[in-house]
Amino acid sequence: MRVVLAAGATETALIDGISAAGAAPELMAHTPAADAEILAYGEPTDASVVPVSPTGCPTPAAVTRAVREAVGFDLTVVDAGLAKPTAAPTVDLEADPGADVREPVTVPEAERIFERAREYGRDLPEDELLLGETIPGGTTTALGALTALGESVGVSSSLPENPLERKRRVVERGLAESGLEAGDCEDAPLRAIRAVGDPVQAAVTGIAAGALEDGARVILAGGTQMVAVAALLRHAGIDSPLEVATTSFVADEQDEALPEACARLDCELTVTDPGFDGHDHVAMARYCAGEAKEGVAMGGALSLVPDGGMGAVRDRFEDVCRRLGIDERDERADGPTDRAADPPEGSRGS
Amino acid sequence: MRVVLAAGATETALIDGISAAGAAPELMAHTPAADAEILAYGEPTDASVVPVSPTGCPTPAAVTRAVREAVGFDLTVVDAGLAKPTAAPTVDLEADPGADVREPVTVPEAERIFERAREYGRDLPEDELLLGETIPGGTTTALGALTALGESVGVSSSLPENPLERKRRVVERGLAESGLEAGDCEDAPLRAIRAVGDPVQAAVTGIAAGALEDGARVILAGGTQMVAVAALLRHAGIDSPLEVATTSFVADEQDEALPEACARLDCELTVTDPGFDGHDHVAMARYCAGEAKEGVAMGGALSLVPDGGMGAVRDRFEDVCRRLGIDERDERADGPTDRAADPPEGSRGS
Repeated sequence: MRVVLAAGATETALIDGISAAGAAPELMAHTPAADAEILAYGEPTDASVVPVSPTGCPTPAAVTRAVREAVGFDLTVVDAGLAKPTAAPTVDLEADPGADVREPVTVPEAERIFERAREYGRDLPEDELLLGETIPGGTTTALGALTALGESVGVSSSLPENPLERKRRVVERGLAESGLEAGDCEDAPLRAIRAVGDPVQAAVTGIAAGALEDGARVILAGGTQMVAVAALLRHAGIDSPLEVATTSFVADEQDEALPEACARLDCELTVTDPGFDGHDHVAMARYCAGEAKEGVAMGGALSLVPDGGMGAVRDRFEDVCRRLGIDERDERADGPTDRAADPPEGSRGS
Repeated sequence: MRVVLAAGATETALIDGISAAGAAPELMAHTPAADAEILAYGEPTDASVVPVSPTGCPTPAAVTRAVREAVGFDLTVVDAGLAKPTAAPTVDLEADPGADVREPVTVPEAERIFERAREYGRDLPEDELLLGETIPGGTTTALGALTALGESVGVSSSLPENPLERKRRVVERGLAESGLEAGDCEDAPLRAIRAVGDPVQAAVTGIAAGALEDGARVILAGGTQMVAVAALLRHAGIDSPLEVATTSFVADEQDEALPEACARLDCELTVTDPGFDGHDHVAMARYCAGEAKEGVAMGGALSLVPDGGMGAVRDRFEDVCRRLGIDERDERADGPTDRAADPPEGSRGS
């Protein structure tokens, strides 16, 4: 099994109140670079931020890495528009970060990114791929793409209280600036991404399209952002079997909306609970309180854990948290700081 | 354990008669890209060449991949001056391919590559690193660096008959064009690389220097090219413990010269025999006949195989060979062709 993580950026993340990382937007740009390093090396190496929220909630990359250490999987990080350099090895799609969805055009190169990604996905020899993302602001661009396609699906949030109305207003404005109304991009997924999406969507949709053409099984590892990718694939006329694998945290928040969306898009849905409930580790408690919820292929990675293996994943997760400077008993109150601070802190949002 | 493979190019490889791949120099430029893909994915995916010699001898990447499949290790490919794109994920040191050693300057950016690589090596969290290379023409630039440093060590060849005299003449000409004599770069390793080395040397030496500063154990995975790196490190004043891990094929060719060189450079030497002898698989027979011998971290990877594990490595090697289109019973006679041909062929040389 290979996990392919598309990592990128969109200026949409800088819109006030949209992302869990709003308190320090200039640090948020480093989050995907740090996520990639955590998956590749087990901790950030070169990235100038450790993606841990002010309350002590680490990036979902910490969970995905814990699964990698416990269960093992191959990994490829795809640079799908990173705003900051990463020391993780990457496949470069030559994508630029996306613009703010409120701009007339947010991903001018959507088609080129999609085609490169499609070729990459087609060439991969694996029979099974698990595709994930890391892009702060990505749930807003997911809402953008879904709305442009005419799919009335809600999106999740990395914040305990989802600022969904704010996201809707941003997307409405984005569509208006692009001269579009909801549903205008039906069956035109690249037009939707170009107008109100992000470069990571173009990459993941392209890799999935190429791998499916080549006969591979594709698991979209994520929550509502991956529902948006599923919708983009369906609107591209691709009717191959598709699976979405997400966390219990997204499933709990979305309730019936998630299985309904997956059913409408003809996607199998897998929900995995890492069993953080009842553990008094601060990071597990933050996830149970609804922070972060999903991202960086977390739900899909958890779906790889065999029966009886989740205890080992939690043990590894505690190890990874220690490497990120999280003291398990310490609930934090301070805002994110840069990596030079002790203990290191940072932020992740989407 | 992490294997870090530095992949790059030098125009030195194009000099007639120096490399095993001399019959088709335009294909050789693709070899490092293909080697990286073989390590990352198990077969070339995007590279337009399958590195198999006209006689059916596959690139050492096939052996290293076989070890990876049998034993497992983390992998990072570092782009240290690739001439052709690879679909493997890479850490980009922003290095250009090296010029022909006969030019006055072959690696103008040696110092910048070294410093970037050093930072990368210092940041890696691993306690143990195994460093390898893939650069056709690399034994000639190894001879260049060793001669400039004043180390009278011979170098190996990917050809059964080592064209050592030809390499010496090329290096002599390179030194003369650089206004240098043998030994003029004593204690000035970056000056040696700049004049008559290659960008992969700058990368591997830098990563090793950074990792050693950080207290990691460093194993130089290769033959005489890694002896050159060891010499560069010693001439940089680094006196940390160093290990060279190579194959029995290089050790057999070099006889006493290899342990003597390692002793002089205060390096521990490990030689591993993959046990290809007595098997009638064409690829194993070609290695036993002295083709390829080493490269792409082969010897170091073999040193990771636990006692009793080499049978499994040979089984995986046969699998990898099948993926590369090698028919185990078929001794080939034709020259290398491009990847569209059936069976696929290509070339590797160093």
